[in-house]
Amino acid sequence: MRKGVATPSREGVDEKSSREHLLDAASAVMIEEGTADVSLHAIARKAGLTAPLVTYHFGSKEGLLLALARRATGRSMEQLQELVAMPVPPEKKLRIHISGIIRNYARYPYLNNLLNLLLRHEASETAQSLKAAFVAPLAAAQRAIIEEGVASGRFRPIDPALAYFMITGAAQSYFSSNRITVKLILGGEPDQADVERYAREVGDMVLNGLLRS
Amino acid sequence: MRKGVATPSREGVDEKSSREHLLDAASAVMIEEGTADVSLHAIARKAGLTAPLVTYHFGSKEGLLLALARRATGRSMEQLQELVAMPVPPEKKLRIHISGIIRNYARYPYLNNLLNLLLRHEASETAQSLKAAFVAPLAAAQRAIIEEGVASGRFRPIDPALAYFMITGAAQSYFSSNRITVKLILGGEPDQADVERYAREVGDMVLNGLLRS
Repeated sequence: MRKGVATPSREGVDEKSSREHLLDAASAVMIEEGTADVSLHAIARKAGLTAPLVTYHFGSKEGLLLALARRATGRSMEQLQELVAMPVPPEKKLRIHISGIIRNYARYPYLNNLLNLLLRHEASETAQSLKAAFVAPLAAAQRAIIEEGVASGRFRPIDPALAYFMITGAAQSYFSSNRITVKLILGGEPDQADVERYAREVGDMVLNGLLRS
Repeated sequence: MRKGVATPSREGVDEKSSREHLLDAASAVMIEEGTADVSLHAIARKAGLTAPLVTYHFGSKEGLLLALARRATGRSMEQLQELVAMPVPPEKKLRIHISGIIRNYARYPYLNNLLNLLLRHEASETAQSLKAAFVAPLAAAQRAIIEEGVASGRFRPIDPALAYFMITGAAQSYFSSNRITVKLILGGEPDQADVERYAREVGDMVLNGLLRS
């Protein structure tokens, strides 16, 4: 992608750090503005760079947003794949998975909004790439955990598709609800202790709801 | 609001039907475009009217969106107030409430998006009006049902604030998720039977999660 090549190793480092620096800037602007729908100008200003330099690194604003979404989901998707393969009971897997989703939304409160923005145009390359890297593997991993629980007789039979919407919906809403609602209900922004408490409560609710008594 | 007054009764009817006609048009455009963030131009075109006439009836585009949000929530808020006062056990109230929210989102799939749009600027008159008419009474009614269940010993102790996010999150996500996710998980748009099935499953999950065994 880069045209004038100088000292490759040194340049590799700069390239990486510039990209990371821009992703950090985009992340900070999204948190400040309470939306993922931010301007390239605001991102560039936050990074202390020019908008063309942003385009240079990511090809386009959409390229930058996609890189940010992949950075915010990559590590947790790897952990989820590992979790599915672990020799622990399905109820424990599901609880760890629910905590993981909720902590990830706490860390990247703009994530749901960002994903919806990038997935808006179904036929786009961006949407298809994110579907393959995130939406499909998340759905498959969650389905595997639930099917394992039902097959082992520990969970009552439940359609994993419906469980998907309940679990992701409960996880998202705590962080993606508008500020007025959050302030009214919680009395302020959730802190880390609130996040942990919410993860436990959603885990309790889902597990109590699913386990055979 | 209207300036040149002719035959008042006749005009009252026209006024009402024009407003309803515009709200129906806005609703249809939002469903078609999959977002509440639609242009005044698209709404006017769908209604077969001009954009200035839309502004004439509602003062502004925001006025029209607020009227639409109030129309989409008004009846279900009245029903919720009646439900809270009914002499039925709290678990039955909560189940009816959960079904009611889910059916309302099914009927107005743009509702969550529309509310977030209107509540975005906390200090605005629109946001404050919607908070008073919808956000606060919904939270209060749901809290009353849960506190009744906990006080009667039928529900295990749970923070109603956390229950709020779980319940509304599960209800919303089925309808407000992006199309790619819905198609991947459900294999298509939910039909009325899917909606009823989802309402039952969320009711089961929450009630099993809440009830003391």
